[in-house]
Amino acid sequence: MVSVDEARAIVREQARPLLETESVPLAAALGRVLFEPVVADRDDPPFDRALMDGYALRAEDTAGAPRALDVVGRIAAGDADLPSIGPEEAAWINTGAPMPPGADAVIPVERTRGEVEVLAVLAPGANVLPRASLMAAGSTAAEPGRLTPERIAVCASAGADPVVCRRRPSVAVLATGTELRASPGKHEIRNSNGPLLRALFDTYEPTDLGAVGDDRAALRAALERGLASDLLVTTGGVSMGDLDLVPSTLEDLGVEILFHRILLQPGKPVLFGRHARGHVVALPGNPVSALVCADLFALPFLAARAGHDFEAALRTVPGQLTGAVKASPKRQRVFPCVRGDTGDVMPLPWRSSADLYTVTRGNAYMIVEIARDLAVGEEVQCLVPERF
Amino acid sequence: MVSVDEARAIVREQARPLLETESVPLAAALGRVLFEPVVADRDDPPFDRALMDGYALRAEDTAGAPRALDVVGRIAAGDADLPSIGPEEAAWINTGAPMPPGADAVIPVERTRGEVEVLAVLAPGANVLPRASLMAAGSTAAEPGRLTPERIAVCASAGADPVVCRRRPSVAVLATGTELRASPGKHEIRNSNGPLLRALFDTYEPTDLGAVGDDRAALRAALERGLASDLLVTTGGVSMGDLDLVPSTLEDLGVEILFHRILLQPGKPVLFGRHARGHVVALPGNPVSALVCADLFALPFLAARAGHDFEAALRTVPGQLTGAVKASPKRQRVFPCVRGDTGDVMPLPWRSSADLYTVTRGNAYMIVEIARDLAVGEEVQCLVPERF
Repeated sequence: MVSVDEARAIVREQARPLLETESVPLAAALGRVLFEPVVADRDDPPFDRALMDGYALRAEDTAGAPRALDVVGRIAAGDADLPSIGPEEAAWINTGAPMPPGADAVIPVERTRGEVEVLAVLAPGANVLPRASLMAAGSTAAEPGRLTPERIAVCASAGADPVVCRRRPSVAVLATGTELRASPGKHEIRNSNGPLLRALFDTYEPTDLGAVGDDRAALRAALERGLASDLLVTTGGVSMGDLDLVPSTLEDLGVEILFHRILLQPGKPVLFGRHARGHVVALPGNPVSALVCADLFALPFLAARAGHDFEAALRTVPGQLTGAVKASPKRQRVFPCVRGDTGDVMPLPWRSSADLYTVTRGNAYMIVEIARDLAVGEEVQCLVPERF
Repeated sequence: MVSVDEARAIVREQARPLLETESVPLAAALGRVLFEPVVADRDDPPFDRALMDGYALRAEDTAGAPRALDVVGRIAAGDADLPSIGPEEAAWINTGAPMPPGADAVIPVERTRGEVEVLAVLAPGANVLPRASLMAAGSTAAEPGRLTPERIAVCASAGADPVVCRRRPSVAVLATGTELRASPGKHEIRNSNGPLLRALFDTYEPTDLGAVGDDRAALRAALERGLASDLLVTTGGVSMGDLDLVPSTLEDLGVEILFHRILLQPGKPVLFGRHARGHVVALPGNPVSALVCADLFALPFLAARAGHDFEAALRTVPGQLTGAVKASPKRQRVFPCVRGDTGDVMPLPWRSSADLYTVTRGNAYMIVEIARDLAVGEEVQCLVPERF
C-alpha cells in the first residue's frame, strides 16, 4: 500500500495539461483556462486621458494663478474633434475624455471660478493619465491561466473576444451498488454519491451515468461508457469483497491500475488508473470516504488537466488545533475540520465514514500522521479545497 | 457624504431576503439557497448496517474463540431476504448490507479461517452501524441555507428532489458612456465593465443590457429596462460632471437615492437607491472603482437578497502588512492586496483606478482608514470577497 503523499505524486504525474484548445466567447469564459497570452491591440489608455472634470490647459499658463484663460471649446469622453489649446487658452473637459492637442494638464473645476479663472498652479501632466501608461500596444495584457472576472475585463479591454482556451477535461460519474434505488425498499438506500460528485465537478459539466448494480455485465457496459471521458469517477465496489467488481472489471477493459488501497483513513480502498484514452478514480462507497478522495485526487487531477494548478485545487495551509484528535495506528487520517480565517482549526466529531451530515459543517481537512495523536494547541497542516 | 461603514449599513438594511420560493431539481440546485429544512423521510442508516466484509453472528458465540460456526447464508448490500441467525450460526455479509435477524456483530473476514472458524472475541455491536444512528426519520437532515455539494448529497439521501429554494434575485448590468464602442475609434474605448460585472454576478445569470451613450433618452430607456430586475447595476455617469446623467435620470424614474458619493477611495461617486420594484447600485466608470464598489455593495446585497449572508460575501479578516501604504487625507481607502493563507498582506502597487491589470493579481482588499498611514508589520483588516 502506498502512502497518501505517494498516491498524490502518482496522480500529479498523470495530470498533464490537455493541449487541445478551443475558441470560447468571452461571455462564456469565466473559469476557463486561457491558453495563450492575450496581447493588447492598442495602448491603454489609447490617448492622454483626463482624470477629472475641469479644464484642459497648458500647465505653464497656471503660473501666477489666479489668472483668467480663454475657453475655446468643450470636450466629452468619446469626442473625436478636439480643439487645439494655445497659450492662455483652455477647454472644458470631462473625466475620461481625450486631452486636446497643446494641453498638458487638467485643472479640476473645484479649483476654478467663472469661465474661467484658474486658482491653482499645476505641474505638466497634472490630472492626466498618459497614453499607454497602463498597457502598451503589443504587450501582454493577460497571461495564460484561469479567467477570473477581473481578467475577463482585461481581455474585453484588449478586444480579445472570443478567447483561445484549453479544452476542458470531460468527466463522467458512476455510482455502483445493487442497494442503490431512487425509491428504496427497506433494505436499500438512495444514491447520494452521484449527486455529490455531480456537484463537486459542476464546473466540468459532468456526464452522470447514474447508478449500476453489482452485476458484471451491466457494470462493464457502464464503465465502458464512462471511459470515453477524460476522467471516469466511480463510487463503491472497490473493497476486497467478492462483490467488489470495479477493479477487476476496469482491468478487463484495459485499465492499468496505478494504485489501489492506500494508507488513508477514510478512503483506504481508493483506486487510480489510466488507459488509452484517459484516467479513472474509483472512490469508496461511503460518502465521507468518497468526498475525501475526490478532494485529494479527482479535483486536483481535473484542475491540472484543465491547465490550472494541482496544488491550488487543495491548498496546504497551517493552523492551530482547538481540540485533540486521535491518530490511526496504521493510516494517515485526513480529518474533516473547520479552519477559521485566523488559523484556528476545530476538528469535527467523527462518527463514521457514512456521516456526511457532520462534514457539511466543515471547510477543510486536517492531516493526522500515522500513530501521532494531536493535542490542543498543536500546529497542524490543513488541506483546503478551492471551493471554500 | 457618508462613510463606507454607514454606506454598508444602509445597503445591509435594504438587503432583505426574498420571500418567494421555487421548486428546483436537485441536479440544478448547487449554490441555491434552501428555503425550508429538509426532513429525513427515513432513518439513516435505514437498517443495522455491516461495516466490514465478514460474517454476521451473535457476539456471544465468539466467546472462547477460536471456534467453528455453521454458515447459513450469504447477504449482499440490497438483499431483502435475510436468513435468521441462531446460536452457533453465521452468515457471510458484505460491507453495507443489512444485518440479519438474530445477529448483533460482524467479524471481519481477516479474523476468520475456512468456512468458518472465528479467531477473535467480539462485543455486541462490533462492526455494525446501528439503524438511525446518523439520522432519525423526522429529524432535520439539512437546515435552510446555501446548497454545497455535501448538502446536496444529504438532500439526495433524504429523498428531497426537487428542493424548495428561495427565488434568486435577478440582476441587470448596464455600462454607460458615449466613448464605449465594440470597435473603438482613436478616441473611444471598449466596454470592459460590462464583461466584468457579468462575470462577477455570474451565479445570478445577469441580464446584460450592453452599453448606452450619454444621451438622456437612450439612457432613460435602458435604465427603465434594468429597473425590472431586483438589482440594476450600472457603471459610469455618476460623477458631478454635466454629462453624468445617471443620478438625475434615476430620480426621474422614481428611484429614491439612499446615498450618492461616499468617503471611499476608489469609488467616491457610487450611488445606491431603491424604487418600487427593486434597487440600484450605480458604480463609477473606472474599472477598479467599479470592482471595489461591486464587492463592497452589490455582491453582499445580492447574497443577502438570495437568503445567504451579507457578511459572508465579503469577510473581514485580519492580517499583517508586508509593505507600507499611504492613507488618503479625506477618504477611507479600500486597497487591493494579496492576502496569504497565513495572514501576510502584500499591498499591490497603485497606479490608477483605471488599472485593472494590477488588480488581477489580488485576492483581497485592505482597509486604510482616513489619514492613517500604515507601516510594514502593522495589523490591518482585510475584506475578502467570497470568490477567493
